[in-house]
Amino acid sequence: MSRTAPVGVHIARTAYWAPPTVETAAALAPRIGRSAEWILARTGILERRISTEPMDAMAARVVREVCPDGPPDVLINASLTPIQLIPDSSIFILRELGWTGVPSFSVHSTCLSFLVGLQQAAGLIGTGQARRVVVVSSEQGSVSRDPSHPESAALIGDGAAAAFVTATPAGSPSALLGLRTATFPEFADLAELRGCGTSAHPNEPTTTPSHNLFQMRGPRIYKAAVPRVAELVGGLLRDLDMTPDDIDWLVPHQASGPGVAAMTKLGVDASRIVDIVARHGNMIAASLPTALARHAASGKLQRGQRILLVGTGAGLVVGAAVLVW
Amino acid sequence: MSRTAPVGVHIARTAYWAPPTVETAAALAPRIGRSAEWILARTGILERRISTEPMDAMAARVVREVCPDGPPDVLINASLTPIQLIPDSSIFILRELGWTGVPSFSVHSTCLSFLVGLQQAAGLIGTGQARRVVVVSSEQGSVSRDPSHPESAALIGDGAAAAFVTATPAGSPSALLGLRTATFPEFADLAELRGCGTSAHPNEPTTTPSHNLFQMRGPRIYKAAVPRVAELVGGLLRDLDMTPDDIDWLVPHQASGPGVAAMTKLGVDASRIVDIVARHGNMIAASLPTALARHAASGKLQRGQRILLVGTGAGLVVGAAVLVW
Repeated sequence: MSRTAPVGVHIARTAYWAPPTVETAAALAPRIGRSAEWILARTGILERRISTEPMDAMAARVVREVCPDGPPDVLINASLTPIQLIPDSSIFILRELGWTGVPSFSVHSTCLSFLVGLQQAAGLIGTGQARRVVVVSSEQGSVSRDPSHPESAALIGDGAAAAFVTATPAGSPSALLGLRTATFPEFADLAELRGCGTSAHPNEPTTTPSHNLFQMRGPRIYKAAVPRVAELVGGLLRDLDMTPDDIDWLVPHQASGPGVAAMTKLGVDASRIVDIVARHGNMIAASLPTALARHAASGKLQRGQRILLVGTGAGLVVGAAVLVW
Repeated sequence: MSRTAPVGVHIARTAYWAPPTVETAAALAPRIGRSAEWILARTGILERRISTEPMDAMAARVVREVCPDGPPDVLINASLTPIQLIPDSSIFILRELGWTGVPSFSVHSTCLSFLVGLQQAAGLIGTGQARRVVVVSSEQGSVSRDPSHPESAALIGDGAAAAFVTATPAGSPSALLGLRTATFPEFADLAELRGCGTSAHPNEPTTTPSHNLFQMRGPRIYKAAVPRVAELVGGLLRDLDMTPDDIDWLVPHQASGPGVAAMTKLGVDASRIVDIVARHGNMIAASLPTALARHAASGKLQRGQRILLVGTGAGLVVGAAVLVW
């Protein structure tokens, strides 16, 4: 079990990118053999954005926005959908930005990647190995939608978001108070893209197109995730000597309409839960930072407020962090 | 540029796994249309191990060995060859181990992944977020060898290695004195597996089997890497107020025979450079920790000695770390 230790970090700037092309439930419906009503009832997703740009181009947009003064000390790509298997996508993001000599790498924890990237940023800054770290999540998941799995295909949308993380400036209350994750591999088959590795290598004759597309058993994940998220968040808040009432804003991964709605079970009122899923869908790792960046841009999020970030992802992985903004 | 800051971490235990199946240069030669002499002259690799087990099974072997007392606080998978695209391979390693509820994620920086994983472990431990972190690299790269690219195919071997990292115990001299990496995306096309992402999606009719196999332009990488490694290591040693004479052992990524031999250009005598490439080939991210674990097992590596870890990888990424063992 990881420990709850505060780290003096500060998310100085955030940015998000919503691709201009809107795909409504009505437009998607015939492609997956379901009605718009079916999509709305199951997912709560009215529309999503579809990117014609690959993830590196979207990532470069948001990284440029949070880095007006040039490259950070380290760039962490916290995204799932890669450009290609080798090299890792952080390289293509830097190439798109025209930056060379900047340290970069990728973290992969599916929909929880941004939270893990934030944890790495805190580790680098907290140990003095870096002063300014960018965590970027950018997803063109629409490319891997499986029309024969309508329930999964109806969820996915494209987008990107970035956070510029620094040590807490003098006089600022900002901190990462605690962050906790846990992996439950007994649920590994509930959200999968089975191809692109050694298990169903694309060149094997037994590998089918379906292996290379995303499939998720939403109701079963929901059932497995709800009690495990409650336990993890409950433990984190207890260790911080906090209750749900101490949380100003809950910013969840936007897994689905029901997934976001279930966050009220954590004891935080719906009016304090940032919910963007109806307009963006599930943008994999980009959902959580997009929700955070949109909320910051709205002006509602004030310095000194306490935020609870909560995520779940394929694995099953669950994670949460409490920040002072 | 990341900063040079010492972190009080200690690699308490290491382990490696060399799969029992040996493939000699003579056995490989006809499969790639070259002679054994050609392979030896180009790569210096006499033989390599080929795994019939996937990377998760190999990883579980070495993780079990470094974790005699049960699960660590966090498991970091620092490997390139995945089991499948979603979820990340850390999940399959935990499943193989029968461990549930343990925090885990993957880092991807191709051949530099172990070094980046070690940096993340130091960040987690140095900020008090974890006390015991396992970094594991496990690679079944043989699956993605391209017989039509003999120069790349002749390099790859399979294997796994793990390190159990803790805070430095009282009275121990152990520390990560400094770690530095840099990415040069202008060389992104010198080592590639172009498939398995959005650029050449496996289901696109224009994607060929060759897209899904590994290709590396060794001589061009060598030329790009040598001066950049020298500059990065030189800067790191200067910042630590050290010279190459202060280094007891240089443990490099085992890119190729010429790649390891070039490490003498850093000013460290060949007798102090750990060279296992002739018997293992290039095991991608597993090469560096296997070299470290083999050297530790040999009894030559003593507590208190200074080790320089140096790596290069697809990207081009270069990285180095100075540790007190």
